[in-house]
Amino acid sequence: MTRQQLIGQIQAKKSFLCIGLDTDITLIPRFLLDYEDPVFEFNRRIIDATNDLCIAYKPNSAFYESRGLNGWQSLISTCNHIPQECFSIIDAKRGDIGNTSSMYAKAFFDKEASGMSFDAITIAPYMGSDSVKPFLKFEEKWVILLAHTSNEGGNDFQLLKSDDEYLFEKVIRTANTWAGPDQLMYVVGATRPESFALIRQHAPDHFLLVPGVGAQGGNLQDVCKYGLNKDCGLLVNSSRSVIYASNDESFADRAREEALKIQQEMSLILEQINL
Amino acid sequence: MTRQQLIGQIQAKKSFLCIGLDTDITLIPRFLLDYEDPVFEFNRRIIDATNDLCIAYKPNSAFYESRGLNGWQSLISTCNHIPQECFSIIDAKRGDIGNTSSMYAKAFFDKEASGMSFDAITIAPYMGSDSVKPFLKFEEKWVILLAHTSNEGGNDFQLLKSDDEYLFEKVIRTANTWAGPDQLMYVVGATRPESFALIRQHAPDHFLLVPGVGAQGGNLQDVCKYGLNKDCGLLVNSSRSVIYASNDESFADRAREEALKIQQEMSLILEQINL
Repeated sequence: MTRQQLIGQIQAKKSFLCIGLDTDITLIPRFLLDYEDPVFEFNRRIIDATNDLCIAYKPNSAFYESRGLNGWQSLISTCNHIPQECFSIIDAKRGDIGNTSSMYAKAFFDKEASGMSFDAITIAPYMGSDSVKPFLKFEEKWVILLAHTSNEGGNDFQLLKSDDEYLFEKVIRTANTWAGPDQLMYVVGATRPESFALIRQHAPDHFLLVPGVGAQGGNLQDVCKYGLNKDCGLLVNSSRSVIYASNDESFADRAREEALKIQQEMSLILEQINL
Repeated sequence: MTRQQLIGQIQAKKSFLCIGLDTDITLIPRFLLDYEDPVFEFNRRIIDATNDLCIAYKPNSAFYESRGLNGWQSLISTCNHIPQECFSIIDAKRGDIGNTSSMYAKAFFDKEASGMSFDAITIAPYMGSDSVKPFLKFEEKWVILLAHTSNEGGNDFQLLKSDDEYLFEKVIRTANTWAGPDQLMYVVGATRPESFALIRQHAPDHFLLVPGVGAQGGNLQDVCKYGLNKDCGLLVNSSRSVIYASNDESFADRAREEALKIQQEMSLILEQINL
């Protein structure tokens, strides 16, 4: 997907919501266990109920890998059910030496090889340039690089200072030399409002993927105050508070209601910046 | 596997060789393509031909994921074919927020959930403490944390200096507070002999997993000069130079010959430290 298509979708849906499909088989409604692939059935219904309200879906691969072969099948089916116009992100946080990262790129970008073709993948920056570049060779595919993450441990190393800048700033400045804002995004936790201003100094035009709104405690207004740019520039992710809004036959309807609340809030925010 | 069992195996086999099963279906002998699972058939024969000469096997998950569902099946079969007494490492370089890392731990440590139970997993440190700790809850399982990696990009961030120490030193000093050398190892590339002395200052007793000998240009003597400790303390990995030693019916025999050469060199080195 191109940057322009992504922005077009934000304008059309008046939303910059990404729904995280962190689907835990122990947390889905029990009646789904009668289906051949309960996790896919859950995701399918969530996607069908919400895809006019959100612009992206983001399955986290850990939840699928934890179930072995069955989980991998659920992930493939889910990837292929995400509507073409939605931006699909595999939250895999991969990263390896060059020839190995090429294999990861095939795994998530090359449908002929692996059965899956996402628009974007999250990558951990620790191994540097050659761990990222193989993904950038795919046209209209995106790398979303971890910058300042939402979790407690996100401060252990990401806030180390060198030459008067934090590690996450150095990551952004360095990665900006590998690709532009048409192929690269950064992950910034919603629990880090204090980091957004700094990040916008280094990446004024980039989209930022922002997890941590909802269950993790981040706040949409704070995120937008510091993170919005003229093209919106934000994909705000919500997982648990949307997909687990209820635990019975009504789960997809309730997920839609939660997504709608967020979309309506987002619509007002976008209006303020004339998008 | 306990640390004592690992050391016992090094003493018994007079080897600290780890064989990397980075099995690329386009590089294996053509006749194997007639088998139902050519990659597993390749790995099976490599393992059967070499397991008295090495102490560990390390499949890199990227090579399996690149083939989708079939690849995941090859990985499960391979994991289950590695002999019990060998140390099995999944080179997955995972890392995510706490509740998600718990899912990755299930994926690779909990056979009932996923069909696989490796002894150890490689982890990227960027996301800090809660991305690592869920793996440490599993008894007799190991985390192998990336410190100074062998690839070109390994210098992009790992050599940043803060408070007069490199990022990779800070990673080691911090991770040492999460677990001891009975559950934690560090990855140090064989192409980084200059880093070994520094790393041994911070981690005198830990095992180090050392990729990069062979195809990547690292040298066993240099690695041992700076990296050996009284318990050996090294797992030296070789992938391509062993498993792709030939490309015909003789591939497993030729892999054995290459492994034997390395094991004989290692045997002399271990003799010098009376192990």
